[in-house]
Amino acid sequence: MTGEIPGGVTERYSEDYPPGAVFTAGTVAVSEADIIDFARRYDPQAMHTDPEAAARGRFGGLIASGWHTAALMMLLFAHHFLSPASTVASPGLDELRWLHPVRPGDVLRLRVTVLAARRSRSRQG
Amino acid sequence: MTGEIPGGVTERYSEDYPPGAVFTAGTVAVSEADIIDFARRYDPQAMHTDPEAAARGRFGGLIASGWHTAALMMLLFAHHFLSPASTVASPGLDELRWLHPVRPGDVLRLRVTVLAARRSRSRQG
Repeated sequence: MTGEIPGGVTERYSEDYPPGAVFTAGTVAVSEADIIDFARRYDPQAMHTDPEAAARGRFGGLIASGWHTAALMMLLFAHHFLSPASTVASPGLDELRWLHPVRPGDVLRLRVTVLAARRSRSRQG
Repeated sequence: MTGEIPGGVTERYSEDYPPGAVFTAGTVAVSEADIIDFARRYDPQAMHTDPEAAARGRFGGLIASGWHTAALMMLLFAHHFLSPASTVASPGLDELRWLHPVRPGDVLRLRVTVLAARRSRSRQG
């Protein structure tokens, strides 16, 4: 099972995510104003907030906070993969990596690979 | 070396963070409006956006998106630990865990333990 997954579906269950499935979802666009707004609130470093300083820096221009990129991932994930009918809170995650800088004008897509599924030990019901 | 670390220092270097050191930094307060605003933009699930629905849910009230908590961690980290003089971008992180729900009115502090320090293989300078 591989392909684009529709968003806004109100019922999804673990049966919808068989191990080995690969889904894509999106898109979300990132503007300079979005990058600066997020960074001023949560990650006020010049590479994220100051286009002129960023242009002189290592990346040659403004880049998004990695936490902004993660938050946009969550936006796509919530809209396309989660549902009010069945979602519980996440305990956390491993191996978060920022492989490429996100720049103004970029359009992001999400790809999800289902590695395994199991019943929650703590959240039966 | 253990203790509260001041914020807004413009020069910090790896020598300031010896292995074994433990620092605390903060605080940042979280309001209901903050929680809802972040979640509407990035994590629009009822437990984060809708106080009435959240009151009937698993947590008995509104809780912050885990990504909001992470972003507030970054705000404290950027203000207290990073500096324009020496900071480079992060490659990512491991073992992010959301151990306790963050609720309206909570006041967050950051604790940082320096496990090890090494020269960057990719970012000499």
